[in-house]
Amino acid sequence: MRKYHLMAPGPTPVPHEVLEAMARPLMHHRTEEFEALFEEVRSGLSWLYRAEGDVIVLAASGSGGMEASVSNLLSPGDSVLVVEGGKFGERWTEICRAYGMETDVLSVELGRSVGIDEVEARIRDGRHRAIFVQASETSTGAKHDVKKLAEAVRRASPDTLVVADAITAIGVYDLRPEEWDLDAVITGSQKALMLPPGLAFVWLSERAWSAAGESKCPRYYFDLRIERKSQAKNTTAWTPAISLVAGLRAALDRMQKEGLENIFGRHARLAGATRAALWAMGLEIFPRDLLSESLTAVRVPDGIDGKAIPRTMQAEQGITIAGGQGEMSGKIFRIGHMGYVDESDVLAAVGGLERVLAGLGHGVNPGSGLAAAQEEFGK
Amino acid sequence: MRKYHLMAPGPTPVPHEVLEAMARPLMHHRTEEFEALFEEVRSGLSWLYRAEGDVIVLAASGSGGMEASVSNLLSPGDSVLVVEGGKFGERWTEICRAYGMETDVLSVELGRSVGIDEVEARIRDGRHRAIFVQASETSTGAKHDVKKLAEAVRRASPDTLVVADAITAIGVYDLRPEEWDLDAVITGSQKALMLPPGLAFVWLSERAWSAAGESKCPRYYFDLRIERKSQAKNTTAWTPAISLVAGLRAALDRMQKEGLENIFGRHARLAGATRAALWAMGLEIFPRDLLSESLTAVRVPDGIDGKAIPRTMQAEQGITIAGGQGEMSGKIFRIGHMGYVDESDVLAAVGGLERVLAGLGHGVNPGSGLAAAQEEFGK
Repeated sequence: MRKYHLMAPGPTPVPHEVLEAMARPLMHHRTEEFEALFEEVRSGLSWLYRAEGDVIVLAASGSGGMEASVSNLLSPGDSVLVVEGGKFGERWTEICRAYGMETDVLSVELGRSVGIDEVEARIRDGRHRAIFVQASETSTGAKHDVKKLAEAVRRASPDTLVVADAITAIGVYDLRPEEWDLDAVITGSQKALMLPPGLAFVWLSERAWSAAGESKCPRYYFDLRIERKSQAKNTTAWTPAISLVAGLRAALDRMQKEGLENIFGRHARLAGATRAALWAMGLEIFPRDLLSESLTAVRVPDGIDGKAIPRTMQAEQGITIAGGQGEMSGKIFRIGHMGYVDESDVLAAVGGLERVLAGLGHGVNPGSGLAAAQEEFGK
Repeated sequence: MRKYHLMAPGPTPVPHEVLEAMARPLMHHRTEEFEALFEEVRSGLSWLYRAEGDVIVLAASGSGGMEASVSNLLSPGDSVLVVEGGKFGERWTEICRAYGMETDVLSVELGRSVGIDEVEARIRDGRHRAIFVQASETSTGAKHDVKKLAEAVRRASPDTLVVADAITAIGVYDLRPEEWDLDAVITGSQKALMLPPGLAFVWLSERAWSAAGESKCPRYYFDLRIERKSQAKNTTAWTPAISLVAGLRAALDRMQKEGLENIFGRHARLAGATRAALWAMGLEIFPRDLLSESLTAVRVPDGIDGKAIPRTMQAEQGITIAGGQGEMSGKIFRIGHMGYVDESDVLAAVGGLERVLAGLGHGVNPGSGLAAAQEEFGK
C-alpha cells in the first residue's frame, strides 16, 4: 500500500474543506443564497488578481478562457503576435488561427524565456492588435516576464493588447494584472486555486473591455460582455458550475487566511527545495532563464527511458507527476509544486524519484536529494 | 427548521454516492485510471442515448453544448429554422444569429407544442440547412414532438439537420436519437443525470459529423471533431471537469441499475401525480398539447403575487421551485420532478405548495392536493 500523492502541474490536490464544500447538497443558482456565495467569490477573485475590475467566471476549463480572450478582443483578420515557447504557446496560435487572425509567431526555444527586445522589435510597426503569451509555460516550466513585456509593448506599440495565459501563474507568484498594465489575464481552477478543473477565469483591462465592444468574432457562451453584466449582479448568464463555485469560496477563504505574500513565499520555497534536490541527484533542470514557481521540468538523464519515470512513479510509488508533452515527450518530466502542497509533499516526490531513478539505473545516493531539499527548507 | 428540498427544473438533487464520488481526492486526467473511468462513462452515455455513436462530453453548461451544435454543423450565412416556443427556443435564435446564420423563426405560442404540419410547410423549399428545436422546453414545460418533426423533415427536406435541445428530455422520457433519425441531441449534467452543472453532452448523427467536416464557423474549445478523436481514445482534448466525470460514473451506475424503462416510468408517474395534485388544488397547468415529464409549469392563480410563490416556498418551506422566465415572470411557476426524485419529494412539494397558497390567499382544502397525488401513485 502507498498513499496517493498528486504532484502534477495541474490538476493539483484539493483540500478537504474544499472537497466538503463541493459535496454539500446542491443549491439552486437563481437564489439569494447563490448570489451571496458568488459575491464573496467575486471579491475573493479581485483580491487574488490584485485588480479592481471584474474577474469573469466561466464554466469551462482554462482553454475556454483562452478562447474567450481571443474571440472577445479581436476581429477576423486582425494581426496578432504569439510568443510560442511550448505547447500552450502553440495553443494560442491554434486558437488565433481558428478565429481567422493573421498570426505571427515568435518562436522561443523550448525552456527559454522570450527576449523582451525581440518582442519590441517585432511589434514596433504597430500593426499587432494583440500579443499572446504565457506568464508561466506549463509545458516547459519557463516563465515569460509579462511585466517587462507589457512595458515594452507600451513603449513600442501602446495600443497592442497584452494577453497572458496565467493558468499556472495567478496565485503562484506575484503577478499584478492591473499595476503591470496587462489587458487579459486567464487562469483556471485546477492549479493554485486548488479546485478540480471546470472553471476558467478571465480578467480584462478597461482597454480590453473597449475592444470587446468592437470585436466581430462570433461568440455566445464565451461572450464576456454578457457575462460581465450578469456577474455584476452576482449571477451568471448561463448555468454556473455550482459545486465548483461553492468549492471556490472555500479555496479562496483558505488562500485569504494564508495571505498572498505567504502563498508566493511558500511556492518559491517549495520550488527552490525541489530544484536543490534535483541538482543534488545529478539531474538537469530543463528551463533556463526564468523558472516558474509552479512546476519544475527536468531533463531525462541519458540512457534512461523517459516515459518510464512518470509511469513508474505512478505505478510503484503512487505519486503522479507529468511527462513531457508533444516533442518533449520522453525527454523531460515535470513535477508540480503548486496549490495545496507543502514541504512533506516535496519530500514525498523527491524520495519517490530517488527510488524510481535508482531502479531505472540512474545512480543516486539514497537521501542525497532529500538532504538538499531539507537544507533549502532550513534557510 | 425545515429540510431543504430542491424541486427546480434543474439543477436537481444529487444522490449521496454521486456527491461522495466527487468528493474523493482528485485523480489526474492523463492516467490509465482516468481512461478507465472515461471508458465506462462513454459506454454509459451510449446506453442512455440509446445510440451507437459517440456522446461527446464537454466541460461547459448545456448552453455550451447548444453553441457547439451550431458552430460545428453550419457555416455563416446558412439558413436555419428555429422552433421558438420559449426562452430556450430564443436561445437557439440568439446563438444562430451570433454565428451569422440566416435565422427563420417559427414562433410557437408559449406553452404550446409546435405543429408538425407548420414545420413541414416552412421547410418544404429545402433551403434550411438545419432546424433547431427543444425536445422539452424547460421554460414552459411543453414538449415538441421531435420524433414526428424528424419524420416530417425527412419527407419534406431530407438533408436538413434536426438539432434537439434535450437538456430536460434525455433520461427523462424515451427519446431515441438514432432510431428517430435526429442529427444532434444535447443534454446537460444537472437534470436527469443528477449531477451539478458543468458538463454538456452532444451526440451527432453520421450526417451531422459530415457537416462538421464542412462547417466554416470558427471554433476551438467546442470543436467536436477534435474532441471526437480524443474521446475515442478515452481521453479529452482539453482538461476535463474531472470531479464531475467521476460523479457521472456514479450517476450512470445508479441509472443503469434502475433501468431506462423504470426511469421513464418513474418520471411519468411523478409528473402525473404532480398534475393531479395541482388540478385538485384548483390550479391550471400551463402547457397544453404535450407535457414534459421533467417539470410542470403552473399558471399563477388570479389575484396572487406570482413571484411570491417560489419566494415563499423557499423562505418558509425550504423548497426550491422556479418562477417564470422572461415574459412569463410572475405568471407561472415551475416544479421540477426529474432526476433523483421520488414520491416523497412530490408530496413534499405539493404539501408545501398547499400551505404557501393558503397563506397567499388561494383557498385550498388542506390535503386535497396530497390526496390526489396519492391516488395517482396507487394506480
